[in-house]
Amino acid sequence: MARHVYDVTDFLDEHPGGADIILKYAGKDATEEYEPIHPPDAIKDNLDPSKHLGPVIPGTLPKPQTISPSPAPAAVQVPQKRAGGTNDTLPEEYVKPSLEEILSLHDFEAVARRTMSRRGWNYYSSGADDEITMRENHNAFHRVWFRPRVLRDVSKVDYSTSIFGFKTSMPIYITATALGKLGHPEGEVCLTKAAAEHDVIQMIPTLASCSFDEMVDAAKPGQVQFLQLYVNADRTRTKKIISHAAERGVKALFITVDAPQLGRREKDMRTKFEGTASAQQAAGKDNFRRDQGAARAISSFIDPSLSWKDLKELKEAAKGMKVVLKGVQCWEDAVLAAQHGMDGIVLSNHGGRQLDFSPSPLALLPSVTSALRQNGYLSPHSPPFEIFVDGGVRRATDVLKAIALGATAVGIGRPMIYAMSTYGTEGVSKALQILKDEFDMNMRLIGARTIEEVVPSMVETGALFQGIGSDTMYDANYEKILPVGVKARL
Amino acid sequence: MARHVYDVTDFLDEHPGGADIILKYAGKDATEEYEPIHPPDAIKDNLDPSKHLGPVIPGTLPKPQTISPSPAPAAVQVPQKRAGGTNDTLPEEYVKPSLEEILSLHDFEAVARRTMSRRGWNYYSSGADDEITMRENHNAFHRVWFRPRVLRDVSKVDYSTSIFGFKTSMPIYITATALGKLGHPEGEVCLTKAAAEHDVIQMIPTLASCSFDEMVDAAKPGQVQFLQLYVNADRTRTKKIISHAAERGVKALFITVDAPQLGRREKDMRTKFEGTASAQQAAGKDNFRRDQGAARAISSFIDPSLSWKDLKELKEAAKGMKVVLKGVQCWEDAVLAAQHGMDGIVLSNHGGRQLDFSPSPLALLPSVTSALRQNGYLSPHSPPFEIFVDGGVRRATDVLKAIALGATAVGIGRPMIYAMSTYGTEGVSKALQILKDEFDMNMRLIGARTIEEVVPSMVETGALFQGIGSDTMYDANYEKILPVGVKARL
Amino acid sequence: MARHVYDVTDFLDEHPGGADIILKYAGKDATEEYEPIHPPDAIKDNLDPSKHLGPVIPGTLPKPQTISPSPAPAAVQVPQKRAGGTNDTLPEEYVKPSLEEILSLHDFEAVARRTMSRRGWNYYSSGADDEITMRENHNAFHRVWFRPRVLRDVSKVDYSTSIFGFKTSMPIYITATALGKLGHPEGEVCLTKAAAEHDVIQMIPTLASCSFDEMVDAAKPGQVQFLQLYVNADRTRTKKIISHAAERGVKALFITVDAPQLGRREKDMRTKFEGTASAQQAAGKDNFRRDQGAARAISSFIDPSLSWKDLKELKEAAKGMKVVLKGVQCWEDAVLAAQHGMDGIVLSNHGGRQLDFSPSPLALLPSVTSALRQNGYLSPHSPPFEIFVDGGVRRATDVLKAIALGATAVGIGRPMIYAMSTYGTEGVSKALQILKDEFDMNMRLIGARTIEEVVPSMVETGALFQGIGSDTMYDANYEKILPVGVKARL
Amino acid sequence: MARHVYDVTDFLDEHPGGADIILKYAGKDATEEYEPIHPPDAIKDNLDPSKHLGPVIPGTLPKPQTISPSPAPAAVQVPQKRAGGTNDTLPEEYVKPSLEEILSLHDFEAVARRTMSRRGWNYYSSGADDEITMRENHNAFHRVWFRPRVLRDVSKVDYSTSIFGFKTSMPIYITATALGKLGHPEGEVCLTKAAAEHDVIQMIPTLASCSFDEMVDAAKPGQVQFLQLYVNADRTRTKKIISHAAERGVKALFITVDAPQLGRREKDMRTKFEGTASAQQAAGKDNFRRDQGAARAISSFIDPSLSWKDLKELKEAAKGMKVVLKGVQCWEDAVLAAQHGMDGIVLSNHGGRQLDFSPSPLALLPSVTSALRQNGYLSPHSPPFEIFVDGGVRRATDVLKAIALGATAVGIGRPMIYAMSTYGTEGVSKALQILKDEFDMNMRLIGARTIEEVVPSMVETGALFQGIGSDTMYDANYEKILPVGVKARL
Repeated sequence: MARHVYDVTDFLDEHPGGADIILKYAGKDATEEYEPIHPPDAIKDNLDPSKHLGPVIPGTLPKPQTISPSPAPAAVQVPQKRAGGTNDTLPEEYVKPSLEEILSLHDFEAVARRTMSRRGWNYYSSGADDEITMRENHNAFHRVWFRPRVLRDVSKVDYSTSIFGFKTSMPIYITATALGKLGHPEGEVCLTKAAAEHDVIQMIPTLASCSFDEMVDAAKPGQVQFLQLYVNADRTRTKKIISHAAERGVKALFITVDAPQLGRREKDMRTKFEGTASAQQAAGKDNFRRDQGAARAISSFIDPSLSWKDLKELKEAAKGMKVVLKGVQCWEDAVLAAQHGMDGIVLSNHGGRQLDFSPSPLALLPSVTSALRQNGYLSPHSPPFEIFVDGGVRRATDVLKAIALGATAVGIGRPMIYAMSTYGTEGVSKALQILKDEFDMNMRLIGARTIEEVVPSMVETGALFQGIGSDTMYDANYEKILPVGVKARL
Repeated sequence: MARHVYDVTDFLDEHPGGADIILKYAGKDATEEYEPIHPPDAIKDNLDPSKHLGPVIPGTLPKPQTISPSPAPAAVQVPQKRAGGTNDTLPEEYVKPSLEEILSLHDFEAVARRTMSRRGWNYYSSGADDEITMRENHNAFHRVWFRPRVLRDVSKVDYSTSIFGFKTSMPIYITATALGKLGHPEGEVCLTKAAAEHDVIQMIPTLASCSFDEMVDAAKPGQVQFLQLYVNADRTRTKKIISHAAERGVKALFITVDAPQLGRREKDMRTKFEGTASAQQAAGKDNFRRDQGAARAISSFIDPSLSWKDLKELKEAAKGMKVVLKGVQCWEDAVLAAQHGMDGIVLSNHGGRQLDFSPSPLALLPSVTSALRQNGYLSPHSPPFEIFVDGGVRRATDVLKAIALGATAVGIGRPMIYAMSTYGTEGVSKALQILKDEFDMNMRLIGARTIEEVVPSMVETGALFQGIGSDTMYDANYEKILPVGVKARL
Repeated sequence: MARHVYDVTDFLDEHPGGADIILKYAGKDATEEYEPIHPPDAIKDNLDPSKHLGPVIPGTLPKPQTISPSPAPAAVQVPQKRAGGTNDTLPEEYVKPSLEEILSLHDFEAVARRTMSRRGWNYYSSGADDEITMRENHNAFHRVWFRPRVLRDVSKVDYSTSIFGFKTSMPIYITATALGKLGHPEGEVCLTKAAAEHDVIQMIPTLASCSFDEMVDAAKPGQVQFLQLYVNADRTRTKKIISHAAERGVKALFITVDAPQLGRREKDMRTKFEGTASAQQAAGKDNFRRDQGAARAISSFIDPSLSWKDLKELKEAAKGMKVVLKGVQCWEDAVLAAQHGMDGIVLSNHGGRQLDFSPSPLALLPSVTSALRQNGYLSPHSPPFEIFVDGGVRRATDVLKAIALGATAVGIGRPMIYAMSTYGTEGVSKALQILKDEFDMNMRLIGARTIEEVVPSMVETGALFQGIGSDTMYDANYEKILPVGVKARL
Repeated sequence: MARHVYDVTDFLDEHPGGADIILKYAGKDATEEYEPIHPPDAIKDNLDPSKHLGPVIPGTLPKPQTISPSPAPAAVQVPQKRAGGTNDTLPEEYVKPSLEEILSLHDFEAVARRTMSRRGWNYYSSGADDEITMRENHNAFHRVWFRPRVLRDVSKVDYSTSIFGFKTSMPIYITATALGKLGHPEGEVCLTKAAAEHDVIQMIPTLASCSFDEMVDAAKPGQVQFLQLYVNADRTRTKKIISHAAERGVKALFITVDAPQLGRREKDMRTKFEGTASAQQAAGKDNFRRDQGAARAISSFIDPSLSWKDLKELKEAAKGMKVVLKGVQCWEDAVLAAQHGMDGIVLSNHGGRQLDFSPSPLALLPSVTSALRQNGYLSPHSPPFEIFVDGGVRRATDVLKAIALGATAVGIGRPMIYAMSTYGTEGVSKALQILKDEFDMNMRLIGARTIEEVVPSMVETGALFQGIGSDTMYDANYEKILPVGVKARL
């Protein structure tokens, strides 16, 4: 889009994000706003060539005043002091650590929080409503303990496995996340390249900042890629996307079923009001009608009418690609998926970004595997059916718990995006290497030499179903009763 | 009352709030103290016309010194700083956000806490004793997870329902809360008007700052209103209120049964001692005897002798209005209510303002619906009987959980009062719109197209009954053992 | 003792507190150290008259340098500020609140913490080891919810009951606590007088600062008192105490069975090292050998050999006084107590001051009442046997929960001591009045008109047995892993 | 090593810690780096005498710039202030407390944290990954309550017991911990001497800073010592160690089975980057390849191929010494150990330093004892088989809980190391005395006169299996949603 002038007047009504945001940039350079959100071919694919008006004459356009992409705020950092130390309470300058210093996936997130643009951080790190499901996804792993075996010969451990017959160096894949250029100017191709280096599979997102073809082109020969798909109300368009993916060698199609409407993420929505001189002024100037925009988005971009009966048509369009439902959240739908001839499911709540109080995928695994088995699936004689989970993973031990409970592999999203946002391709590669090191060690320590040996009896799930959410905004609003005589200061 | 002189000498003994508070304002302008607490017709209805002495001669009365209605203290606001940021630790000025910035019901509460008068905030936000039930009401929702269904055609969702056959645009109603003018000078008519705008039902409170007729007059034609009722020891007076309500078109009567005596709310009581130069002086000057006042309030205002045998008489007086018991707290009383011919119950603990350690209404729903069914109610063949809950609701997801567990609709109190206190009618309207947006999205995301499809199998309640209270005053009093060598500073 | 000279040389070996502390004050005025710890007749009763050397000649004795009784440190008091307020972060001066401002038993504790001498506060507020049982005693009440009944005629509620046939205005008694003069110069007679005012029973402690006779003399005619008893290795001495109590009209004897050795309370022990210029100096100067002292205390003061077979002899000595075992901690011993002809038991862990990880008395009630019933007790036909609990009570609701689970009455210790320490007799009286007000209201709110109506079905105990301790010293020692790049400050 | 020059060129490839760290000190004085990590005979035993080049000529070598051993940071020490106190917020100087002031094992840890070198503190205090198992080891004790018995004659209590027939004054032993000289220049012989003083057994670590013979030589005549063993891939070397131990009178061999690879302890790894002027510089200068080093360590030092079939050979080499597996973590392996003729097991997860989310040893005891019994062990007729646990112990009550659940004795590691690091041999001796005092008191208070009387019915384990981990790095990364209008400060 950069450096070109377009006439988008006729497109105003169809724009998934609403007309207002387009009008805001009318006659101005919208590049900075446009790029992280749209793949480069978005205009080409959607706008009639007659509306491509030609190049910008340099120097003729003032850049609009944008919300400065200031770094996200760090966690409350009560300065750690040695009792008996100096009187200095100033926080030190935060120096971005070298990649050498990064020891875990947590570390990428800590750096991202301190160095990313606020807009990018808020977009990636936010979840639906009170972000309870987002945190539960991670917390559920804390309620499962290992039952490690000793004195097995673990001189060699092999944590590679295969997904639909495609080899992966470890039982994870990089799952689809949108708008990668909010984190890194190169966008999702960083993930493609790092995946290639480590022989893991990347799931290409529909809403990437890079175009589908850019990501496929960036793959090395033989590199396996999957495609995540939002089904459009215009099925012709959807089938065109599927066909194109099949032609380009994509091996599996992951149809998102947990997002008939894109979720509200209030932390992200609040970004809009931050950094401005006055909230009132901001509110006054900006007439972007979110409600309308969201309603429109539904009708034009993601089809909320998608239902079980549509699967047959999509599977046919997939021409042999595996077809997987991404976003199943109870055993009943897992069984339905198998009955509708799907090749697998992802137990997922969209990283806690859609419905708050969706259950953790990990906690669903026992009932889902049990129900599938009772319905004749997951046996050597039944058609192959694979179960994936995603959400909240930070350690190889998290993955091993899911494997023990019946998952084929685990999708990892935000940690990869944080690694990319902080150190680019090299960061993602390091993140994958850290996971490999963790798998290597932890397989040894639980006494499993192969992924097949990671069995249900290796985990203790007695506390898994005791999850209780915690609501930070309510807590912040609650005013504790003060001790008598201690007055609140006004 | 304003601008008139009354002789209330004979009324001293009957005043529900005690004689002292009246004597305190003898010969002075009591308008500011009087208005938020009394409906405008309180004097007209209760004082013999002979005691109306006439208008005040302007300028002859000094206003009494009152406790300044300073804003409530904000939560401990540890300033969030970026590690590596500046040395500035001053909190920024709090600028009241524009209504545009409000994204959730939590947000109204956050603004209320920072901008309301301390007296109003403390009155609304306080609960009984250690406020454990008040918080449990909200926390109980955190112990229920959804079991969402996917791939249903949710292009259209309809979250409207009906209460006793009266249509409501969503399964909530604005429940009765007292003394609205502590929050907004217009008082409860703000709620009436916003309810009209959004087609929801308002329950008129007995202890409103506006008069009953003001609230009925403010309704648009056809707008449905209910009435919350405290039963007076003087049953003639109570029946007069009921008759009047029936005549004015009120559709249902909600008899409060959880308040034979009005609860102690210590956070609110403490207000009295705040803001004065010296607590001792305040104590010395003020001889208002609370105990006596409370005791009197019981005998004259709310009848603690009210019992099951009185219901027949009240139901008859209701002349066809539906009659509901508000404040049932166990299944045994739910069954008794049905057996006594009531039309429904509200599982409620008065927003945690009466008995601390009352259970959460949500946690009662499973046993209550089960007991009613076992006793032959809630079936297609039994007389209609509706179950409501209130307390602790902040999100549409909270409401949907209660619906799934058998509630017809859910009462919302404090959030509406906070919306009114911060932005008036427009605030309440926005609060209702936020709920609608949340219902619209969350119905889609759980896979329910109508309220009828929000069924028990859509929630997981395994952790619901594990509530444990937490007592902030005990915790504040507990002194942790310090590490050796680290001395407490005196 | 004040103003007299004694020769205690021969007593050195028998002093329960060890010889060192006596030698420390040799030739000096020991009044300030002596008084709060000993009843006034301690010397008279234990020292041969020939060793009473006569009065001190005024002005001849320098007072020893003592640890200054500085106030206890307040809780970490993060100053509460209004966002948008001033830059002032200084805590306000703490002005001791007037008695009018006290709204709950918590409030006395808050004032005590801020105004008592550190020595007194630490003595009363401390518990054994990590103080986990001390806190669990209170926390257990938070795991029980009410099941309140509505629409009962509660115009009159009567919360009086009787203990062994002796009337009490409410189902509590003031339990025995030692060394009252550490809190108030008048000592335990404050409790006696307030108990008289409110018709509750006081249990006289063996280790009071006032003498037994002072406390009995302070009682009004007909006032009921019990006696708590530590059994001495010298049984003659013990029997003499019992006989004297019987003669003076004491109605029941509570034999402490949970303290064969007095517990370690480290918060209290640490007091010794506080307030001195240098901890090393303090350690060097003070040769008080605690271990030896404690060991000696065992052999001479409390008899660790006391066992079931000794009860017969003690019961006979009681001459008709009721005999109760105080400190039973499991159902097996409750049954044994009944089988040994005791009249009752106190489920108690000595306020968490003896064995850390003793269970909460409240959590013991269900198994204890069940076991007693299965063994033929607690029935109308069995000999009367009463069950008491103590520990952690702060609210009438706490008491009502214990009553519902089978307790006859509940002992209250620390809250009374805090009320006494802050406002003397008047404080204790106010504390008792607060409890009465709470009983009055809460009986109404749970729908019980008499103590007999407070039945097991009024409480929900599903979460009661889920207590988990929390260990503040371990937590303080644990160093969290810092985010990468955020350096600990040295 | 000090004051000598060695040619270690040929040894570079075999060095368990990798070649890089050796090259870093080439031509420099490596004493300070070398000593705490290696026993003094490490070079003698491993380097051909021809490579011993002779003494250093004084003054010819510059000391390398090392990371300064600055004290570890104290816990966040929010200064405790009295409300109404002064404005002084400076933390006081931390004066190392005298040994007299130490009241519990917690206290040694608090002093260690404030006074040890950061390197030493980080090495000892760190655990694997998110340190969840490390903390769970301690927290599990908090989920067990006592069921104390009263009125038993506890005038005499005897807490001595025997391990494999060897007397110990209490049911604990000092377990093996590595690199003692990081804490105290004398190293592990401090533990030997204190163990002698108190008649407890020391388990000699393979990776001690002192040599095996130094520790055996430091023992008093008749003092019992055990040996902890890492099995080397070179079994001849391992058997030589075993033979030597048997000859020197070691009584039992504890074969570590939970460490086929040494765990990652990120807090410790992060030490490397701390204290340097710039993290980037540090990263650039230091090419130490950790991954390679770790991989090498596996092949040369600890044999990951060790398996059940190797036990026979090791047991034969032990020539009558008892042989115990240290690091068993489930009942299945406990039964296998008994079936393979072992004399016992240590339920242990290596102090939480190997596999994060290993279960707490305490929580394993019930299933392990039950499974052994069901398989015919632990009976009077079965061959003797003893069960030990270690990890997280801070109090004698912790030990008593493990004894009640079937352990013979409990290993204590870190607390001994902290006592040694802060006060040397005298500190360890004091730590052991504190435990004795605690045993003496707590045996009395639970009503057990001998270790045999500490039986399963003395503990309540209902809550034991409800452990839920908590992950501090995730929590630190999570950014709470701020109240509306309260802006994050950048």
